[in-house]
Amino acid sequence: MTSSAVPVGPRVQARLDAIDALDEEAMAATTIRLDSLTKPPGSLGRLERLAIQLAGITGRADVRVDRRVIVVAAADHGVARQGVSAYPSEVTAQMVANFVAGGAAINVLARGVAAEVIVVDAGVAGPIPAVATPASGSRLVSARIRPGTADMTAGPAMTRDEAVRAIEVGLDLVDELVETGIDIIGIGEMGIGNTTAASAIAAVMTGGDVDLVTGRGTGIDDAGRTRKVAAIERAIALHRPDPTDPIGVLAAIGGLEIGVLVGTVIGAAAARIPVVLDGFITGAAALIAVALQQRIGARLIAAHRSVEQGHAVVLEHLGLEPILDLDLRLGEGSGAALAMYLIGAAVRVRDEMATFESASVAGPS
Amino acid sequence: MTSSAVPVGPRVQARLDAIDALDEEAMAATTIRLDSLTKPPGSLGRLERLAIQLAGITGRADVRVDRRVIVVAAADHGVARQGVSAYPSEVTAQMVANFVAGGAAINVLARGVAAEVIVVDAGVAGPIPAVATPASGSRLVSARIRPGTADMTAGPAMTRDEAVRAIEVGLDLVDELVETGIDIIGIGEMGIGNTTAASAIAAVMTGGDVDLVTGRGTGIDDAGRTRKVAAIERAIALHRPDPTDPIGVLAAIGGLEIGVLVGTVIGAAAARIPVVLDGFITGAAALIAVALQQRIGARLIAAHRSVEQGHAVVLEHLGLEPILDLDLRLGEGSGAALAMYLIGAAVRVRDEMATFESASVAGPS
Repeated sequence: MTSSAVPVGPRVQARLDAIDALDEEAMAATTIRLDSLTKPPGSLGRLERLAIQLAGITGRADVRVDRRVIVVAAADHGVARQGVSAYPSEVTAQMVANFVAGGAAINVLARGVAAEVIVVDAGVAGPIPAVATPASGSRLVSARIRPGTADMTAGPAMTRDEAVRAIEVGLDLVDELVETGIDIIGIGEMGIGNTTAASAIAAVMTGGDVDLVTGRGTGIDDAGRTRKVAAIERAIALHRPDPTDPIGVLAAIGGLEIGVLVGTVIGAAAARIPVVLDGFITGAAALIAVALQQRIGARLIAAHRSVEQGHAVVLEHLGLEPILDLDLRLGEGSGAALAMYLIGAAVRVRDEMATFESASVAGPS
Repeated sequence: MTSSAVPVGPRVQARLDAIDALDEEAMAATTIRLDSLTKPPGSLGRLERLAIQLAGITGRADVRVDRRVIVVAAADHGVARQGVSAYPSEVTAQMVANFVAGGAAINVLARGVAAEVIVVDAGVAGPIPAVATPASGSRLVSARIRPGTADMTAGPAMTRDEAVRAIEVGLDLVDELVETGIDIIGIGEMGIGNTTAASAIAAVMTGGDVDLVTGRGTGIDDAGRTRKVAAIERAIALHRPDPTDPIGVLAAIGGLEIGVLVGTVIGAAAARIPVVLDGFITGAAALIAVALQQRIGARLIAAHRSVEQGHAVVLEHLGLEPILDLDLRLGEGSGAALAMYLIGAAVRVRDEMATFESASVAGPS
């Protein structure tokens, strides 16, 4: 429907134009099926609504969610030098190595739902430490646009061209996944400093106050949070990002991993693949994607509500109801992996339960 | 600590006396382990708190939750003849047959977490329909105390002796499970009319207004809900149940399946086995159990917050924070089965993640 007035490049625009509204017929067929099962109508609540949404997204009342991937995009942030994070920047590369080795939370949680972890190096600053024994359920995609963003308080985080290229990395990845077969994609991220970029995006795209949408990230103290708010305010004052130019926002105050996630969301929406958002940073990517194409909103599944204080604002702006509320604040796609279990359960309920007729159970008196 | 002043019988009292406070040492050891893992401390929120609680309940920092059971207690309710349910009473027996056949929501959801479903006929009124092919993950325990309760609006639902015997059925079941080996027990229920009994218990045990704790159950209309509130108020006026005599409350206005669940909770608490509550009716059982022995409260895990409006009141009274909030209102243990996945994930995170040291990841700067 609404698309940005500012050009986004032909490749991205073609995908945006290919995104449909939800398939009402598949949704209606799913509702009929769910109401035939041996339970009071609607009594499985969100599970039933998820089954219906999956049908709408894919256009299939018999949609399956068996082939699962978590895309974890990673990059460094020049703004980290402003003292906005509790951890040093080298942790980004170290955690990428940990993802490849299978030792991070996302590896454990993705294994639990039989999802492959695809780690995308979108712009880590330093070398990725070598991993002696890569884990079988994990692989690294090297797509480094540049070695981290520039410090947004001094200049744009990246050029407009780099922002588009980051998005195209996400499109390419979805193309590859579609080719080999994929049913559902969760998204996550890693990048020291990236809650600063996400808060800046959230402030600009939702019109919210910087202080309202800025939290403690990995766990900074009050002084660190004050520095973080001040850095975001300086960056916004410097660039005056225009929310009707989402690519411009991404370039000025965003992140390379956020760009890849924007592309992953757009690519998945165009291919009718359900996308499971994780926490605050993936929410910022969704804000950019939905601003480019409003129809994407109905195709997103919000896994959880993060402790990060801006996340609730982002979810409300997107009109998304999170599945889980577990006080998570890790990122990596951890919440998306947990939510995939419930999404899978919704499909199994639809397929495996007896009907009132088959089980000879009486309906309402 | 506090126990009822009114005698509960020697067998139940012995179990109540055997219930310990949580094991602080095992909890502290689990916290140290969790803080060594490659994530900001506490960033997995509720998952970390669950791992710590499991250690406290079992006294083991290496607690596993692999051997899983959902106990689904079923019984009929004489009060159903007051027109308090959207479904006829014969649905109780029909759904028990459905549980045995493996076609109900709880069967699907229990399979998803590799939990056995144990259906306890605590007092179904009519014959259980024969099942051609019983499901492998499900079995029926016949322990019918009486064929349904009496109508609480005309007299006590059951005798005091029957209430104690129902509790003892739960104790026996836990004994059998402990003998064969069990790590975690979820509880659920089935019984047309049982939200009426649960609302009556909730009103008496929390001191809440009947109207506040009475919802729509399987989906009655406004007129039905008005009848339901009136029936509960008549029953309470007739029996004047005393909340300091929880067995008396169970006998006057409770249910046979609720009694079995009270016993299951007490038996599990005494055996240091974690118990996962499902929705409103299991919450009413927990109110009775905790009134008999306050230490049980810390040993309970609340799976979810039900749509049934009294459930939030019950959870608040018990001081329990639900894991999920998915607008469920089915019962059967469906929420407990879903929550078991997250409880299992908490244990896997504790065991399978790399430490900062093993993964060579830097800590806070």
